[in-house]
Amino acid sequence: MARKAAIIGGGVIGGGWAARFLLNGWDVAVFDPDPQAERKIGEVMANARAALPALSDVPMPAEGRITFCGTLTEAVEGADYIQESVSERLDLKHRVFAQIQQASHGVPIGSSTSGFKPSELQENAADPSVIFVAHPFNPVYLLPLAEVVPSARSDAKVIEKAKEILREIGMFPLHVRKEIDAHIADRFLEAVWREALWLVKDGVATTEEIDEAIRMGFGLRWGQMGLFETYRIAGGEAGMKHFLAQFGPCLTWPWTKLMDVPEFNDELVDLIAGQSDAQSGKYSIRELERIRDQNLIGFMRALKDRNWGAGKVLLEHDERRRATFHDAGAAATGAPLVLANMQVLPGWIDYNGHMTESRYLFAASETSDAFLRLIGAGMDYVAAGHSYYTAETHIMHLGEAKLGDRLTGTLQVLGVDEKRIHAFIRIQRGDTVVASLEQMFLHVDMKVGKACPAAPEVLARLNPIAQAHAGLPRPDAAGRHVGQRK
Amino acid sequence: MARKAAIIGGGVIGGGWAARFLLNGWDVAVFDPDPQAERKIGEVMANARAALPALSDVPMPAEGRITFCGTLTEAVEGADYIQESVSERLDLKHRVFAQIQQASHGVPIGSSTSGFKPSELQENAADPSVIFVAHPFNPVYLLPLAEVVPSARSDAKVIEKAKEILREIGMFPLHVRKEIDAHIADRFLEAVWREALWLVKDGVATTEEIDEAIRMGFGLRWGQMGLFETYRIAGGEAGMKHFLAQFGPCLTWPWTKLMDVPEFNDELVDLIAGQSDAQSGKYSIRELERIRDQNLIGFMRALKDRNWGAGKVLLEHDERRRATFHDAGAAATGAPLVLANMQVLPGWIDYNGHMTESRYLFAASETSDAFLRLIGAGMDYVAAGHSYYTAETHIMHLGEAKLGDRLTGTLQVLGVDEKRIHAFIRIQRGDTVVASLEQMFLHVDMKVGKACPAAPEVLARLNPIAQAHAGLPRPDAAGRHVGQRK
Repeated sequence: MARKAAIIGGGVIGGGWAARFLLNGWDVAVFDPDPQAERKIGEVMANARAALPALSDVPMPAEGRITFCGTLTEAVEGADYIQESVSERLDLKHRVFAQIQQASHGVPIGSSTSGFKPSELQENAADPSVIFVAHPFNPVYLLPLAEVVPSARSDAKVIEKAKEILREIGMFPLHVRKEIDAHIADRFLEAVWREALWLVKDGVATTEEIDEAIRMGFGLRWGQMGLFETYRIAGGEAGMKHFLAQFGPCLTWPWTKLMDVPEFNDELVDLIAGQSDAQSGKYSIRELERIRDQNLIGFMRALKDRNWGAGKVLLEHDERRRATFHDAGAAATGAPLVLANMQVLPGWIDYNGHMTESRYLFAASETSDAFLRLIGAGMDYVAAGHSYYTAETHIMHLGEAKLGDRLTGTLQVLGVDEKRIHAFIRIQRGDTVVASLEQMFLHVDMKVGKACPAAPEVLARLNPIAQAHAGLPRPDAAGRHVGQRK
Repeated sequence: MARKAAIIGGGVIGGGWAARFLLNGWDVAVFDPDPQAERKIGEVMANARAALPALSDVPMPAEGRITFCGTLTEAVEGADYIQESVSERLDLKHRVFAQIQQASHGVPIGSSTSGFKPSELQENAADPSVIFVAHPFNPVYLLPLAEVVPSARSDAKVIEKAKEILREIGMFPLHVRKEIDAHIADRFLEAVWREALWLVKDGVATTEEIDEAIRMGFGLRWGQMGLFETYRIAGGEAGMKHFLAQFGPCLTWPWTKLMDVPEFNDELVDLIAGQSDAQSGKYSIRELERIRDQNLIGFMRALKDRNWGAGKVLLEHDERRRATFHDAGAAATGAPLVLANMQVLPGWIDYNGHMTESRYLFAASETSDAFLRLIGAGMDYVAAGHSYYTAETHIMHLGEAKLGDRLTGTLQVLGVDEKRIHAFIRIQRGDTVVASLEQMFLHVDMKVGKACPAAPEVLARLNPIAQAHAGLPRPDAAGRHVGQRK
């Protein structure tokens, strides 16, 4: 049965939380007295559906159900996790917690607050031990960071449970060990913001020039390594201490205006707003959101390919979810074996709107890998020193797989001997074959790098399948060379 | 004839400049009295060769020649551009400029200084009008940003010329209109650095926690949109002024400790160095550099796919070079075209420790996509409704590509007609072909889903290449079917 998340307070942040829970298979109950709440959350949800699944290489679970509740009580009843994202007013948050805690007991209550410390949130609460900060970053359905800030009054077990829930919805919970205004990340943003305001006010740089100074330089670095790791590298062979010795003295130079806060008056506001319009006004906000999300997907998939940073978080999330699927067992029947099931994911689509070429071969690999596992030649066998390698592949690109298509991979054995498997794989959408791949696999002793007979127990599983398939019609495409007349 | 860049002062920054010029086809003359200069620059060059070409979808020009000169005079004689990257000491820089200007007149002299204003650099110079700041970001051979800061004494034509040169080597020159300590970007880094030091000193966060707070959240955003554009989106429908109205008041909250500078003593240095070792010590600096570079390539290619930010800079650079590639008739040589460069990434490796099957097809797609762009059948052409589809592929899996291998994709045209391209792609590690892919592409009218002749302007680029390749030996593997006797 799906678990339930209660989202108290909508908008961009509450909507982002709702989307992340929902798309990870949780039921979501929303309470927000704003009559526009359902519309606003719907817009965030649309953005999220267009983006979050593109991070995944495992089919998404079925979406949960989302309900917009008439009362806060209804929203939190039976919830396994509660996230508060109302306006940044302490008195309002206190009232909300009081209401929540009349209907819910022992359930973690995370607050999206950027400004208040957990001890402030916990003041006068019926049960302070379950209230903590869980501060996300926009867009909440894409960026993994959630700063989790307990206080001395927090129940450590509740905090650990909250962190585990956040991991289960694909986030990276950063446990902030000492509560402090604005937690960690926003303190840096605040510092940069002040400096940027001075530069705009003093006419040194426009909003656009400031933004380019960020995204064409250190901004690119900070998506993959933070401040200290970057400087460690800069210290080079001489090391971090050398870097610090060089850099430390700069602190006393009059580089920043950080001693003062610029006066935030109408003149400054108009200046910034005007420059921002000139810089970004050619796109609507919705367009900018979609552009941002696609860029972030690109970055995060790049890190996923490299098993680094936010990409590592994605891989772990896939792994956790993959474990809940069970591979269908296959028997040696007189039909091609259905060995793989997959869904064409947003990240598999090229600029033509179709599945990229290489994904067909990926789909075939999923199919042949499943076949090798079936005959006992999977990872453990490989670890012992022998493996079936693909020697040759012939692909017929017959049709187009589109976003969302459910595909199966089937395998027909064309022929075997003690060293080789000659196979015909079909990637199908229902009965339509979108691609076929004829492949020759060669069994190799990996230590000496030479072909050799497969183990008797593997051949004992392989041969009956080959015999069962011997009566199947030979595919027309088998034996083709490129450009052969049809 | 290749142009000449003089690099005065080596190290990570000078070496990065040398690499960027060299790999973009300039001759480079280096002067640095450090006996280790050639070795250190060699290491930067090795990193750059492993990284910079991976950003390109146009064959790289021939590398320039690099010379390590015995005197500064020899380095700057005949140079078209001079970049100074000596230590951050004003008296030293003044001496260097004086020496340069005895041997060079009218040539732009950019300084990599992060700390000095151009007017300070120009003090007592023989010709101040050609001296300016050109401040890059590490790694200089990858990150596009160069802050170009003139002073009131600068010659505007020299500044424009310098900016054009920087664009020609693939950079994004940001013209800083008013000189100021640390220019623009480093002012932000300094602000964050101070805040981070306080957090470490006060035990609120370790170096690792700070770095995760950056790279799991806003760091990812800042690689594609800067501060103001991000906040514009956050302001949503209500707009920037609404966002500012909400955010402005926060400035008076006691969020930052920026009023003070933490004392930079041995104790703090040891604390930071120790935490940094714990965080990052499992990798050597060289390993971290390579990881960083591959991550940055991933980000920048993701932006390139989306024609955004730093990716737009790369596309414009390719476009500029493609024009000279055609003019030089380089496409009509009698050799297979080297069209793609890539490195086998951690995410491409299967349980055998080798590159997964589907990645060979991915590598081939990168190669054929680059070919299609070369003949004018890239994204814009596809957007207008026609596209070359892959109809059939035959893969010979010949060798194993391993983690870290640098691969090139070459394409040999076997035959063409008005609707088809018959191509032979080799994926190579150096001279060793690890996989070959024979492919038939079919030109299709996407609206009606039928094959049709390609546009005349595409055929006009395709046919000369086909003719130039007609004399190449036909690959043995062409025309094979699976299981054919060798």
